[in-house]
Parts: sequence; C-alpha cells; structure tokens
Amino acid sequence: MNPQMATESPLTPGLVFEMLQAHQRTSALKAAIELDIFRVIGEGPGDVASIARKCASSERGIRILCDFLTINGVLEKENGSYRHSPTSAVFLDPNSPASLASIATFLSNPVMLEPYGRLADIVRTGRTVLPGEGSVSPDNPVWVQFAETMAPMMGPVAGPLAALALQGQTGPMRVLDIAAGHGLFGIEVAKQNPQARVTGQDWAAVLGVAMKNAQKAGVQDRYELLPGSAFDVDFGGPYDAVLLTNFLHHFDRPTNVGLLKKVHAALKPGGRAATLEFVPDEGRVSPPQPAGFALTMLASTPSGDAYTLSELTAMYKEAGFREISGHPIPMSPQTVVLGKA
Amino acid sequence: MNPQMATESPLTPGLVFEMLQAHQRTSALKAAIELDIFRVIGEGPGDVASIARKCASSERGIRILCDFLTINGVLEKENGSYRHSPTSAVFLDPNSPASLASIATFLSNPVMLEPYGRLADIVRTGRTVLPGEGSVSPDNPVWVQFAETMAPMMGPVAGPLAALALQGQTGPMRVLDIAAGHGLFGIEVAKQNPQARVTGQDWAAVLGVAMKNAQKAGVQDRYELLPGSAFDVDFGGPYDAVLLTNFLHHFDRPTNVGLLKKVHAALKPGGRAATLEFVPDEGRVSPPQPAGFALTMLASTPSGDAYTLSELTAMYKEAGFREISGHPIPMSPQTVVLGKA
Repeated sequence: MNPQMATESPLTPGLVFEMLQAHQRTSALKAAIELDIFRVIGEGPGDVASIARKCASSERGIRILCDFLTINGVLEKENGSYRHSPTSAVFLDPNSPASLASIATFLSNPVMLEPYGRLADIVRTGRTVLPGEGSVSPDNPVWVQFAETMAPMMGPVAGPLAALALQGQTGPMRVLDIAAGHGLFGIEVAKQNPQARVTGQDWAAVLGVAMKNAQKAGVQDRYELLPGSAFDVDFGGPYDAVLLTNFLHHFDRPTNVGLLKKVHAALKPGGRAATLEFVPDEGRVSPPQPAGFALTMLASTPSGDAYTLSELTAMYKEAGFREISGHPIPMSPQTVVLGKA
Repeated sequence: MNPQMATESPLTPGLVFEMLQAHQRTSALKAAIELDIFRVIGEGPGDVASIARKCASSERGIRILCDFLTINGVLEKENGSYRHSPTSAVFLDPNSPASLASIATFLSNPVMLEPYGRLADIVRTGRTVLPGEGSVSPDNPVWVQFAETMAPMMGPVAGPLAALALQGQTGPMRVLDIAAGHGLFGIEVAKQNPQARVTGQDWAAVLGVAMKNAQKAGVQDRYELLPGSAFDVDFGGPYDAVLLTNFLHHFDRPTNVGLLKKVHAALKPGGRAATLEFVPDEGRVSPPQPAGFALTMLASTPSGDAYTLSELTAMYKEAGFREISGHPIPMSPQTVVLGKA
C-alpha cells in the first residue's frame, strides 16, 4: 500500500509483478491462521519438523509458507527456525490479548470476496454485483459475523471515541448506538460513565452479539435493544449523544443527510453526534488505509464511499449540526467526526 | 513484500490489515487492465468523466478505482485528474514497448489462482491441489498462454542470459533450449551468434508460439523444433550450450539431477548448461521476490521449489558439471547458473 515503494525504487517491473501477486499474501496469512501456525510458533519450538507435526502438515508446506510469512514481516527466521515477529506476537498469536486472527474470518468471507473477482463489471456499472443492496441489505448475516469477529479491531478506538462522545458529561444520560454491531462503542460509554444508559440499534440477530458483550462488561442493566433498520425504527430519545460508527460510508450523500436529520431530531439541544469513519485527505489518495477503503465500498455497496472531512462536515451542516470537528484516532486509520445539535 | 514495512513502523495492526486486504491490489490492477484504463490515461485527458466515457464505465467506479491505483503507485493524481506514474507509463500502458499488461492474463488465469483458495490444504499435504502433476502435467494448456503472454517479462533477461550461455563463442554451434516456451532465450542466442543453430524443445502446442517468435526475429531458418517432454525426448546433439530456463523450480532434487545428467550427456565436452532461476539467499527469506517465488511452486506443483545457489550447485555437481557459477541478472529478480560439461 505504500506508494513510496514505487517512487523510491529504480524503475523496474517489480511493483507491477508485486501487485499482480499481492493476492498470495492474503492467501498465505489466511492459510497460516487456519492452520494455527501463529499459536504453534508462540509455543515453540520453531523448527520445521515440530511446526509441521503440531499443525498436522507437511514439512515442505510449512517451510515454504513460514518463509513467505517471514518475507512479509509476520514471522522471523534464524538458523532455519521460526519465531514471532513483533507484529505476529502481538496481533496474530491467538494467545495475545490483542490478537486479530478472528478478523480474517470476516475479511475472507467468500461472500465479501466474490465482488473482487468481478471488479471490472463493478466499475462499469458503478455498484456492487452483490444481490440487492449488497452488504447493506436488510438482515444480511454478514453483520452477525462482523459483530462476532471484528471486535479486536476496535481496541484502540473504543476508548477515545467514547471520551469524545461523552465530552466529560457525568451523571444520568442516554446514548443511542446506531448500527451497534458488537456493541463495544456504546458499552465503552457505559463503562466511562456509570450512570449512562445505552440503546443499541441494529438487526435483531446482530444485537444478540452486542447484548452478550454488554453482559461480559457487566453493563447489561443499562443496555437496551432497539432492533431494526436505522432508517425505519423510531429512535425514541431524546439522547445526550448518538454514536454512528462505521455506518455512513455504506450510503450516498442524500441518504446520509436524511439519516443525520433523523439523528439530529433524536438529540437533546446541545447533544452530540459522533461518527467513526475512514476519512481520506481531500485529495482522496492519502493516507493509504482510509483512502483505499473506498474500494471496499465500491465492491460491496451500491453507492457507499470513504468521505472526506469537508464532505462529512457538509452533510452534518445540512442536517442542522453545528460545531463540527474531526478527531483522528491515534494508532488507528479512523477519524471521529463530532457535531452538536 | 517489503519486510521493512513491518519493522520500521510503530507496532500497529496495519501490516495484518494490509495483508488481509492485499488481494484487493491484485483485483484492482486486473480490473484496470481489463477496462483499458492505462491506455486511456496515456492518451488523456485524465479527468474522471473522460476516462469513464472512454472506458464505458461509471464515474463512481472510475474515480474510486483510479484513486486506489494512485495510492498504490501505478497512477498519479493532481487537481482531481489522473496521469501515469513512472511505473504505469513504462510497464502498464499498452502503447509502451515495455508494457507488461499481457502478463496479467497469465497471472490471473483462474486455473492458476484456484490453489490459493485452498492453500491450507496444500500446506497440509505438501503438494498442489491441481489435478495430476499440477502446472507440470503433460501438454498443460497453461504453458501456451504463458508463452503467448509472459514474453514481456523476459526483456531484461534474454540478452544477459544469451551472452552468458555463449561465453563469446562465435562460428557454427548448436544450442538446445529446453522448455523453450516463447522461445525468446534461444532466439536471442541465434541473434547474438548468426551462425548458431537452435533447437527449441517444449510441448508441440507451445512450440507453435516459439516458431512464430523465431519468424518475427528472422531466425526461423536456424530454429528447429523438438516437441515432447524434456524427460522423454531424445535431445540429440551434441550441443555447445543448453538453456534450461525457469524449469528446474517445478521439480524436486532427484528429478532435477536426473535431467541435468541427461543435459550433461547431450553436451560436447566443455559445453555449457545455463539455467535461469529464482534463487533466494541461503536463508531462503531474501530477496523478497525470488524467495517468495517458492509459494508459487508450493501452490502449483507437487514438489517444486525456489532453490538456493548451493542447492543448484550440488545438483549440477552430482550430474557431472564443473566450474559452476551464479550470475544475478541486473534489473531482474532472477539468476543464471552456469555449469561446464
């Protein structure tokens, strides 16, 4: 993803070759997670024969796969023996509290991958080839899997997001978490303010995951469920704060403005809306991760996008919000955008 | 592919995310080639509306795809308009003589990609899931496509390889090109020495492509065809030089030693065998491209590999060769290994 790879190297076809084969890196990481290689490497010993035995695999396969993982920075090799790299120790060993191995399940869901094999068709028509509304179809089961597997990505984000939404508010308050998913953002608000009551909205099946997480966090008595579509349900309220996380990017501008108006109407005067988004710079080609996220929306939705801060600000304004501000989250590719009702 | 991406960055999950989504980079480049975007960008103008019209595509699709290509260094963007990056101008515009766009056809052949979806199974069993002998099955049609599309990759390699095989030899000589494919290596020998006669060996259908290229180069009168399997046909000879390009990596050590003995027997005393290979360092995890090539062999063959120089040297020695030497090819990830009969 690093454009410097292109500009700093002498002009060789290496970049073209590398892109044409980049799919191998995804396949290799998925295979390693499926074979439980990162757990086995963490337990040691790291010689090929031991890993192959514990992973019920061939020595040829393990050696070539582990070499490939080493080349790509998610293992290290010394004297023919493998050990964790800093990245794999923290983010890929299932015994690490920060392990992200489960997100591979979501990101390698065949339904979500299928559009990439037909990307030229998608560019031609301008919308996903997935049936109906794509990933945003009603009750799409993919969001249950998302809620169950993507929680580890939210680690660095939940705390700062909740703090921004709370703005130091203590005492009784009500918070609506739209498209709650795993529920961790609303749950974090409930943890930071022990008198906050949180309403999680999402498809009913998804809210099952959120409620489980609320119970784990011990905040289930202050956690209410509002099942259904964010566009159709009555939000109730009024709320002190509304969370709108990883949601607006699935839709086009008019749809988002309509939803933000509905959010505005559900807020107390002075209440905050906090959206979490992949926000590229105004030129849309940096930083790599938030800017590149637009392709995921092209592949999987009819009209979603990675919106710039000025676009999000304009949507907020049109919906009646004021004092709109962007807050990049440290150690994360995402940004919180706040608006006041 | 650059492991420095992992070690120089602060410890974030970015590398894991990037690997899980690396398949998008392959899909994006393939879609752009299919839509002829690089030709259209080269012709200009580079605004979204013009590109979309010429590529019979949607503006949303073109804008998001071109942004993604820009993020990845194969386009540039200024004031909302796209133009070639140095890499895309030289290697992706079909109007460039060095264009590699055709290799996408081979590298995205669904038959060749299929194993990557089942890589964990391949690691378990240690061999390709492709039927029979995988990519090295007799008369596999994939090699006709290889011969027809991969020639542009050979540009920087053919000249140096032919010079190494010739070792300055002038006057009448005979050269055998095993697994000739597109035939360009043997043809380059015939061009460098106007008295050299070249025998191209490969599956009959593949040799059709080689002969076409020999005609294009005007050397068809000194180009003979030897159709069949390198393991079964009588090589004839004796030869002054034998080329064995991109072939040994498909097979295991005993198979290669057997073939090298057959090559040795077909050479005049003092004749040269020249193999072109992806040769990783002895630790097998650098440089990225030759070392990473082993995964392609794991996915597509029963027992192939990217062999180190010491492994190739040992095979040559066991087959009776002497004065064995490795010659990395500038501007290429490949190495020529020479041995003397």
